[in-house]
Amino acid sequence: MSDRMDYASAGVDIDLEGSAVASLIGALSKSVRPQGTRGAPVDLPGGFGGLIEFGENLLALATDGVGSKLSIASHLQQWGGVGIDCMAMNVNDLLCVGAEPIAFVDYVAVPKPDPAIHAALGASLAEACRQARVTLAGGETASLPGIVTELDLSGTALGWLPKGQAITGEHLQAGDVLIGLPSSGIHSNGYSLVRKIIEHVGVSYTDETPFEAEHPHRTLTRWTSGTPTLGEVMLNPTRIYCDPVVDLLNEGRNGTSFPLEAVRGICHITGGGLSNLLRLHPSLGWDIHDPLPVLPEFAWLHQAGGVETREMYRTFNMGMGMVLAVQEQHAATILDWLRERMTGVAIVGHVVDNGHRVTHALDGVEFDHY
Amino acid sequence: MSDRMDYASAGVDIDLEGSAVASLIGALSKSVRPQGTRGAPVDLPGGFGGLIEFGENLLALATDGVGSKLSIASHLQQWGGVGIDCMAMNVNDLLCVGAEPIAFVDYVAVPKPDPAIHAALGASLAEACRQARVTLAGGETASLPGIVTELDLSGTALGWLPKGQAITGEHLQAGDVLIGLPSSGIHSNGYSLVRKIIEHVGVSYTDETPFEAEHPHRTLTRWTSGTPTLGEVMLNPTRIYCDPVVDLLNEGRNGTSFPLEAVRGICHITGGGLSNLLRLHPSLGWDIHDPLPVLPEFAWLHQAGGVETREMYRTFNMGMGMVLAVQEQHAATILDWLRERMTGVAIVGHVVDNGHRVTHALDGVEFDHY
Repeated sequence: MSDRMDYASAGVDIDLEGSAVASLIGALSKSVRPQGTRGAPVDLPGGFGGLIEFGENLLALATDGVGSKLSIASHLQQWGGVGIDCMAMNVNDLLCVGAEPIAFVDYVAVPKPDPAIHAALGASLAEACRQARVTLAGGETASLPGIVTELDLSGTALGWLPKGQAITGEHLQAGDVLIGLPSSGIHSNGYSLVRKIIEHVGVSYTDETPFEAEHPHRTLTRWTSGTPTLGEVMLNPTRIYCDPVVDLLNEGRNGTSFPLEAVRGICHITGGGLSNLLRLHPSLGWDIHDPLPVLPEFAWLHQAGGVETREMYRTFNMGMGMVLAVQEQHAATILDWLRERMTGVAIVGHVVDNGHRVTHALDGVEFDHY
Repeated sequence: MSDRMDYASAGVDIDLEGSAVASLIGALSKSVRPQGTRGAPVDLPGGFGGLIEFGENLLALATDGVGSKLSIASHLQQWGGVGIDCMAMNVNDLLCVGAEPIAFVDYVAVPKPDPAIHAALGASLAEACRQARVTLAGGETASLPGIVTELDLSGTALGWLPKGQAITGEHLQAGDVLIGLPSSGIHSNGYSLVRKIIEHVGVSYTDETPFEAEHPHRTLTRWTSGTPTLGEVMLNPTRIYCDPVVDLLNEGRNGTSFPLEAVRGICHITGGGLSNLLRLHPSLGWDIHDPLPVLPEFAWLHQAGGVETREMYRTFNMGMGMVLAVQEQHAATILDWLRERMTGVAIVGHVVDNGHRVTHALDGVEFDHY
């Protein structure tokens, strides 16, 4: 095996996954619910799914799981953060269309139920609901000894927005300002590669980090004292952006300091890293000329795994978990508004009209497809 | 091993599962969303979860998976029905509170994505959406080679109803008439026991059934010709009761032939069998004096597994997948209305005031707790 690692060699075949999903979607047919009735699908310009009509409002559903980050939680038997991860993956997606998350349900599949683990999951989900300001409206625990060998956790979030107020990216223009919101760590993507690198290096999740893990843009959730362990850094819960993004959207709807239309696109940086930006508009480009600081774990994974720089940016969030594209004339107001509520928010770039691609301050970090 | 089998010996520890779920729920806190706002939880008398406020309406979420029925689908590589099972488990739960299902999202976890399987799942979900009359509003496929060894499929359904029109069981009275809706087979519960019996007997899922599998109350979904195979019977998709129950509720809301209040309770017969009825009311009893015919696979499992009769009725639906408790004066009208839309609907019993228990035409089939 070469020292140089990438996401595909970590066992995740993105093309195969894409073609499987395409097969599933290809087999679907048009909804039986006619336009203008409750539950009818809403086609937005950005191609966002999950929106349905509901009278004067739209409802949005998002479903996602924590993925292989769970294997680290399982290995360390530390379940305190995974409910937050699960919530974050879903509600952060809802925010991208301008929806306010209001409710959540969880699905847990286990080889065998364990009351202690479930109590920890419950506490984690309760904290997640508090952070995302949603009601936990139900859940299911399935015992599937023949199907799962370790705990799997996924969930579904429900959000709403007034009809006609979806954020779709369709009004994006060259010159729009990109505001980056800092991530709290690796969030919940890229863990096949994380685990492979850690295995390759031969360190243990209970070892102290071989790097300075504290960073002013995030707080680590700790269960040891002294120097943070690798496990604590790798399991740090995904940031939930409801606070401040829901409030920002409502501020725009009230129109006191800026109009809602000033927020032209919102992007959750998940698997695919910066290439996620390309999903917001069919032709405009994205220039990240002043990126947020790279969190220390990314720098360490980069070096320890000998991962190509470009591969790092299409696998991980690298320190920026969400990007807002805002109208230039309101950018300063929105930036100040956000900075009062979250440390580390900054202008990271601009929308540009030089082709459908992402460019970055670092040479070679460039993407022309998602 | 004794010849006599039960659900616990099939590897499912219901008590452990209950205590794990209780641990999770115990760790939760009150919702942060105050009463009277969108997303606030609604406490119904029957203790039904999943309902939240949304202006003049209530929204309901249900989340559930197909469970170990998937292992048979996986063994036979027959995925055509599992999307219907997944949909049914969720939308049938929504019907019980009087909600109309409008949208659905699926979650698939696989060791490795397979486009052929996903195409079959997509076709199955498309058919499920048609039957349940919902929009597929999204989905997620997760590749989790370290966590799942076989495909796991779960989903979440969203429904709605006008505020004040939930069906809660609180108005149930002795004398209310129980109308049974036939099941299409084993549905999606009790498969740990099913699989254990089939293994014990030493038959193969590709063998022809050692019993007459056709029954006038259901149609088998076939992929062979000739005598049905055991696999075809065991994988027959769960019946989706949206048609006729959503229409029945709307008929009640329009009030042309009977009022909505005539429908006092709706029960989806899932794991726990007839004991599910006890969840609808804290003190009344349920007398099933004229049960629907037992489907042939249940009779065969009963005999082949040497399962106690009572254990059969608290594990399986035994031929009745849903029960409606209706006001006596409107029972005949509602029965006729339902019979025009579904073969095999019949009056099966009454609500009685002789203690919080289920009694049955068969001696010994009695339950006093869920």
